[in-house]
Amino acid sequence: MSVITLITDFGTRDWFVGTMKGVILGLAPKANLVDITHEIMPGDIQSGAFALAASFGFFPRGTVHLAVVDPGVGSSRAAMIAETEDYLFVGPDNGLLSLALERQNVKSMRLIENPKLALKSISRTFHGRDVFAPAAAYLSCGLAPRKFGPKLRDCERLKLPLPKEKGGRWSGVILYIDRFGNAITNLPEDLPLLGHPQSTRLRLLEKRRTSVPVAQFYQAVPRGEALALVGSSGLLEIAINGGNAAQGIKLRPGDPVELVRTQADATRTGRS
Amino acid sequence: MSVITLITDFGTRDWFVGTMKGVILGLAPKANLVDITHEIMPGDIQSGAFALAASFGFFPRGTVHLAVVDPGVGSSRAAMIAETEDYLFVGPDNGLLSLALERQNVKSMRLIENPKLALKSISRTFHGRDVFAPAAAYLSCGLAPRKFGPKLRDCERLKLPLPKEKGGRWSGVILYIDRFGNAITNLPEDLPLLGHPQSTRLRLLEKRRTSVPVAQFYQAVPRGEALALVGSSGLLEIAINGGNAAQGIKLRPGDPVELVRTQADATRTGRS
Amino acid sequence: MSVITLITDFGTRDWFVGTMKGVILGLAPKANLVDITHEIMPGDIQSGAFALAASFGFFPRGTVHLAVVDPGVGSSRAAMIAETEDYLFVGPDNGLLSLALERQNVKSMRLIENPKLALKSISRTFHGRDVFAPAAAYLSCGLAPRKFGPKLRDCERLKLPLPKEKGGRWSGVILYIDRFGNAITNLPEDLPLLGHPQSTRLRLLEKRRTSVPVAQFYQAVPRGEALALVGSSGLLEIAINGGNAAQGIKLRPGDPVELVRTQADATRTGRS
Repeated sequence: MSVITLITDFGTRDWFVGTMKGVILGLAPKANLVDITHEIMPGDIQSGAFALAASFGFFPRGTVHLAVVDPGVGSSRAAMIAETEDYLFVGPDNGLLSLALERQNVKSMRLIENPKLALKSISRTFHGRDVFAPAAAYLSCGLAPRKFGPKLRDCERLKLPLPKEKGGRWSGVILYIDRFGNAITNLPEDLPLLGHPQSTRLRLLEKRRTSVPVAQFYQAVPRGEALALVGSSGLLEIAINGGNAAQGIKLRPGDPVELVRTQADATRTGRS
Repeated sequence: MSVITLITDFGTRDWFVGTMKGVILGLAPKANLVDITHEIMPGDIQSGAFALAASFGFFPRGTVHLAVVDPGVGSSRAAMIAETEDYLFVGPDNGLLSLALERQNVKSMRLIENPKLALKSISRTFHGRDVFAPAAAYLSCGLAPRKFGPKLRDCERLKLPLPKEKGGRWSGVILYIDRFGNAITNLPEDLPLLGHPQSTRLRLLEKRRTSVPVAQFYQAVPRGEALALVGSSGLLEIAINGGNAAQGIKLRPGDPVELVRTQADATRTGRS
Repeated sequence: MSVITLITDFGTRDWFVGTMKGVILGLAPKANLVDITHEIMPGDIQSGAFALAASFGFFPRGTVHLAVVDPGVGSSRAAMIAETEDYLFVGPDNGLLSLALERQNVKSMRLIENPKLALKSISRTFHGRDVFAPAAAYLSCGLAPRKFGPKLRDCERLKLPLPKEKGGRWSGVILYIDRFGNAITNLPEDLPLLGHPQSTRLRLLEKRRTSVPVAQFYQAVPRGEALALVGSSGLLEIAINGGNAAQGIKLRPGDPVELVRTQADATRTGRS
C-alpha cells in the first residue's frame, strides 16, 4: 500500500482533485492518498515548490510525490518524473519539483511522453487528471520510470535568494507567509549567530529597520509581541506570540531582513 | 476495498463530515473514503449535482457515490439509492443525483426506508450522518439495494437549460464558476462550430455583446486576455489566460452566451 | 487497520497536516487517517474541545483521536494520552481533550515524555508533527500507553457554562457557531420544557429579549424565519430556515439565552 501525496493549486471547492483521485484509484486500488495542500495560489509555482520541499522528507521511503501547479498546461512545457534515493516525484517541468530535488540524491529524470500511460483522451487544460495522476498511479504500482519516456538531462530550477554574509551580518528575505501569519525567511537554523540568540536580533529593513529579538519559543516574549525563532522547517521565522505577524507588522514575501549581533548595536536604544 | 466518494455542503470547518466518516468506518472498515467536495454553497442542489456529474465517471466501477445537499432534511423529501451499470448513488431525492443519472444506464432506484439500516437515533437535521452514511457503508459491503426499501418509480430531476441552435448560432448559458474563475457553459465540445475554432467566437450577451475568441489552450491568447476553450468537463468555458474571468469580466451563472461564426460578422471590427 | 482521527488548528493551506500524516504513515503504514477538522481558529482550545466532544463517539471502538490546538507549544504544558473504555486520546494537556473525556469512562492518563517515541529532532513549535503524531502512530499499532511516561493524576479541564433553572426557566449560552450560521447552545435535548415544543420559546436576551419558537425541523417555520431546534449534537440550536442565523440575527458565542413556557408569557404579543 504505497503512499501518494498530492500538492496542487486546484482548491477544494470543485471536483478537480476528486477526479484525480478517482483516476489514481482506478489504476492503483491500493494507493494511500494523502493531501499535502490544494490551496497553493493559482499558478504560484514558488509556493508549491516550497510546500513540497518542506514536507516530502517526512514521508516513508517509496512515497510518490505528485505536484501539479501548472500554469503552462497545454503549452510546450514538459511533464517529468524524478527518481531519487528515497522517493519518486511527478509533475510539470516548471521548477515545481526543483527545491525538493536539490535536497535529494537524484538517480534519474524522465519525460512523461508515453500516451499509453495517460488517459485515452487528454484534455488541454487538466493534465493533473489526464497525465500526472495516471503516471503517479503506475509508479506507485512499481512501473519503471523509463517506461514513461526518454531521459531528461536537466529540469527547470527555481532560484531562491540565498542568505548573504557581510561584516558579521546575515541578510535574507521572507520566502513564505503561513496560515498563522508567521513569515518564514531563507535564514537557516545553522547560522552561527543563531547559536547566541540572546545577543542576536532580526532587523526588518522595510519597517524602519526595527528589529525583533531572536528566541527559542513563542512565550519567550510577552503575548502580542514579535519575535524571530527557528520554525519547524529549520528556517528563521518572524512571529507574534499569540498573534499574526504578517498582518500585525505587515510583512510580505520578498521583504528583506538582516540578522545582527546586538553587541554591535549596544549604543542604540529601544527597539532599534 | 471499495471506494465511497462524498459530496456535501457541510463545509470542512465543523465536525459534520468527520462524523459521517466515523459512521461509515464503523460499518465498513475497509471502505476507501474520497472527498470530492464539501464546499457546495449551503443548499445549492444544482452545483452539487453538477459536481457529481462532472466527477463520478472517473472512479472505478463499483464505487459508491454519496451526495448530501439536503435543504429539505427533516421534511417529507425521500431518501434514495440508484443502481446503474457502473455505480451506486446515495442521496436525497431532490434532483441532486439526477444529472449524473442522466449519463448512466439506471438499473433500479430504491427508497431508503428500512430503519434497521440507519443509526438507532435519527436526528431531524443530519440525515447525512444518520441515514445516508450507513446506507453508503452497507452498499459498499455488498448489501442489495432492495433491502433498503420499495422501488422508486422516478426521481426528482433538475432541468438544466439546453443549448439551442438558430440560423447557425448556438445560444447557451453559464452553468458554473470554478475556483479559477473559469465560467463553464452548457455548450458541449461536439458542437460543429467548435471544430473550426479560428473562425468562431463566443459572444457574452450581457457584456454589450463583446465576444472572445475560441482557442485550444490558455496561451493561445496573450496573458491577461479572455478566451473560450473546451474545458476538462467537455464543455466550453470562458477563461482569462493567467487570470480570473469571473472576476475580471464579471460573469455569473445564468449569463447568456452565443457561439457565432466570425465569417458572418466579417463586416464588424474590433472585439465586436 | 485502525482509525486515527485528526483535529487541529493548522489549517489546510500549508503543509503542516501533511507532514503529520507522513510521520504517522512512516510508523503505522496501515493507519486509516480521517480528518475531523483543521480549521479550528488558531489557539481556540474551546472550539477544538467542542469539535472533539461532538464527533469522537461516532467512530469505531479502538479509534485513536489525535487533537492538537496547542498555543502553549514549546512552554511547560504537558503532552498527554488518555485511555478510555472505547478510545485512545492524544494531545496537549490544556483542556482540549477534557470535554470528550467527561463523556467517557477514563481508564488511565499518561504523560508523553519518552523521547524514544518521538521524532529524533523535536522542534520548539510543532509538537503536532514531532511528538503527538508519533504517539498516535505507536498507539494505533498497539503500544501500551504506559510506555510513554508516568501516570497523570488529573488533566486540565475546560469549564463550560452549565444551563441553570430558575422559576421554570432555563438559562444558557451560545457555545459555538457552525458553518451554516447555526448557533449551538448548551441547553441539552432532555430538558423537560423541550418535550412541549409548541408551548416553549427561546429568548435571545441580547436581542431585546425577542424570542424564537422551538420546533422539530427547519421547515416548521416559513423560509427566512428563525427557530430553535435540537441539532445533531443533541443540543438546542438557533437557526434560520434556509438562512444563516448567526449573520442574520448577529449571534455570538457567549450570548445568553433563556428557554421559557409561552403560557407564562400569554399576555405578551408579537415576537416578544
